[in-house]
Amino acid sequence: MTTSHEIRLKSRPVGLPTEGNFESATVEVGVPEAGKVLVRNHFMSVDPYMRGRMYDRASYIPPFVVGEVLQGHAVGEVVESNADGFVPGDLVSSMYGWREAFTAPAAALEKLPALPGVSPSAYLGVLGMPGLTAYAGLLEIGQPKEGDTVFVSGGAGAVGSVVAQIAKIKGCTVVASAGGKDKCDWLRAAGIDHAVDYKAGDLLGQVKAAAPKGIDVYFDNVGGEHLEVAIEVARMGARFAECGMISAYNATEPTPGPRNIIMVVGKSLKIQGFIVSNFGHLRGQFMADMGGWIADGRIKYEETVMDGIASAPDAFVGLFSGGNTGKMVVKL
Amino acid sequence: MTTSHEIRLKSRPVGLPTEGNFESATVEVGVPEAGKVLVRNHFMSVDPYMRGRMYDRASYIPPFVVGEVLQGHAVGEVVESNADGFVPGDLVSSMYGWREAFTAPAAALEKLPALPGVSPSAYLGVLGMPGLTAYAGLLEIGQPKEGDTVFVSGGAGAVGSVVAQIAKIKGCTVVASAGGKDKCDWLRAAGIDHAVDYKAGDLLGQVKAAAPKGIDVYFDNVGGEHLEVAIEVARMGARFAECGMISAYNATEPTPGPRNIIMVVGKSLKIQGFIVSNFGHLRGQFMADMGGWIADGRIKYEETVMDGIASAPDAFVGLFSGGNTGKMVVKL
Repeated sequence: MTTSHEIRLKSRPVGLPTEGNFESATVEVGVPEAGKVLVRNHFMSVDPYMRGRMYDRASYIPPFVVGEVLQGHAVGEVVESNADGFVPGDLVSSMYGWREAFTAPAAALEKLPALPGVSPSAYLGVLGMPGLTAYAGLLEIGQPKEGDTVFVSGGAGAVGSVVAQIAKIKGCTVVASAGGKDKCDWLRAAGIDHAVDYKAGDLLGQVKAAAPKGIDVYFDNVGGEHLEVAIEVARMGARFAECGMISAYNATEPTPGPRNIIMVVGKSLKIQGFIVSNFGHLRGQFMADMGGWIADGRIKYEETVMDGIASAPDAFVGLFSGGNTGKMVVKL
Repeated sequence: MTTSHEIRLKSRPVGLPTEGNFESATVEVGVPEAGKVLVRNHFMSVDPYMRGRMYDRASYIPPFVVGEVLQGHAVGEVVESNADGFVPGDLVSSMYGWREAFTAPAAALEKLPALPGVSPSAYLGVLGMPGLTAYAGLLEIGQPKEGDTVFVSGGAGAVGSVVAQIAKIKGCTVVASAGGKDKCDWLRAAGIDHAVDYKAGDLLGQVKAAAPKGIDVYFDNVGGEHLEVAIEVARMGARFAECGMISAYNATEPTPGPRNIIMVVGKSLKIQGFIVSNFGHLRGQFMADMGGWIADGRIKYEETVMDGIASAPDAFVGLFSGGNTGKMVVKL
């Protein structure tokens, strides 16, 4: 038997989640039955979208169940296999996060290549769901053309930092917002043209100064004031890839939408929401492009690594105060 | 010399325009110089978008100039021609509205076919800019598929009434909102599945009752509460054609946007604004389709006709209180 610590949803958060919404438990994981594989996780992911699953409501993905272990992306190593195609030592990704070990049907696992110089945790970030989110949302919805100005909010986050760098690769001028000097410095070091610190105030003024002719693409991770600013500075025909609105995830009352939404008409804006699963068909192309860009040094990535399963709730809650630069992961 | 009465912008309105924002004047129109044509207008158009041109601000079309005659679509008859291609009696459309007669270069005129049983005023509505707006916005942005549910606000207006009927032709279930029983009765008589009276209150409840499975397409003429309701009832992947937001045209303070804008992400909504000039390339196809649908009786159209140039300001202001069923025109 293998002992595994796991994190369960104890109660549904109201507003910002707290420690009290989570509980830890210890379970024994048996040997894998026929067709199953025993995996020990090395890294698990915490992502802003998980906040939505903590509400009890219908959405594109079912809500978490109170009292049950949470779910999310994880990368681990096969310990024991009772299924064709997997042998001990294989690196695999799954949706069996928030736990140290598990058995699962082979079909629930994806075997990962062990790329030289790439941490397995990268498959939770730049080479995983956040990376594909950035790639597909920017290219398919944002449709940046060479010479365009691209604005991305949450520019130092797991998704935003990839958006900003892909936009540079595509020949765009990039304005990225982030909270605080360190994140802005990171963006500038990664070659981003303009980093604006939203915590410094006057976001509209800062973005106007960075993009005096306006923006052609907005990649939204934040919503709220950022979205209103983006509408204000959008040029005719600008495309908005609506990936997330983290500013509203913990709101306990409906928050007013952008006061300048009327500009959508006169500026012929396209504001399009998406979820990464809309773009599963691009995964092969994404892995090829992203693998190449990382190998060439054209995409840099940062990770904020918390240690141990017990830190997972804090890691998750930290997403909402900007506790991470790049991808937030938990090392198990 | 030909005497022409015209309406000028006396001052920029603040809030709902009033009589005091307009002034009438009498001018003498001379014989047309070489390359020019003298036209007497039979009908002029008043349209909600004109309110936007009364603000002094950059937009997709320049603002009206205080002290100068207003502009807009008009249909008239050639009285005297000093240009190739035009002879007295020709029916022509132009942007020389808000006046009884004018001379203009031939290039500023479009010769219109005299269709049997079709009033020249139809070229200001169902066969003109509002008709093309409805056609292109619905088909190109809304992309309705057979079996879809389409919601259109301002459903008894010049644009909305055409949207609703084209959606029926395309095999959709149509929910149209309008203000008051008479307009709703008109919609039902035109074959629209569900007419909801927004003046009767509980718009959300009414739309939910009419479309219990939600909507696939929203064609927005109104904005405000209508847009929020549409987001609320939108199905995954719904398309919003943002044509106008008349509820906000006279606002003197920024009005909050939809409080549920966050649903754009989870529902993968596309909210896309447009102006009719984006779709000039569809004009030939539109005229062919719409001419056929009118001849077949598949598209019905209503006009609200005001009499005489002096009534033009009232006709225009009446648009904002729903004074029209179908297209509002002024007979000159």
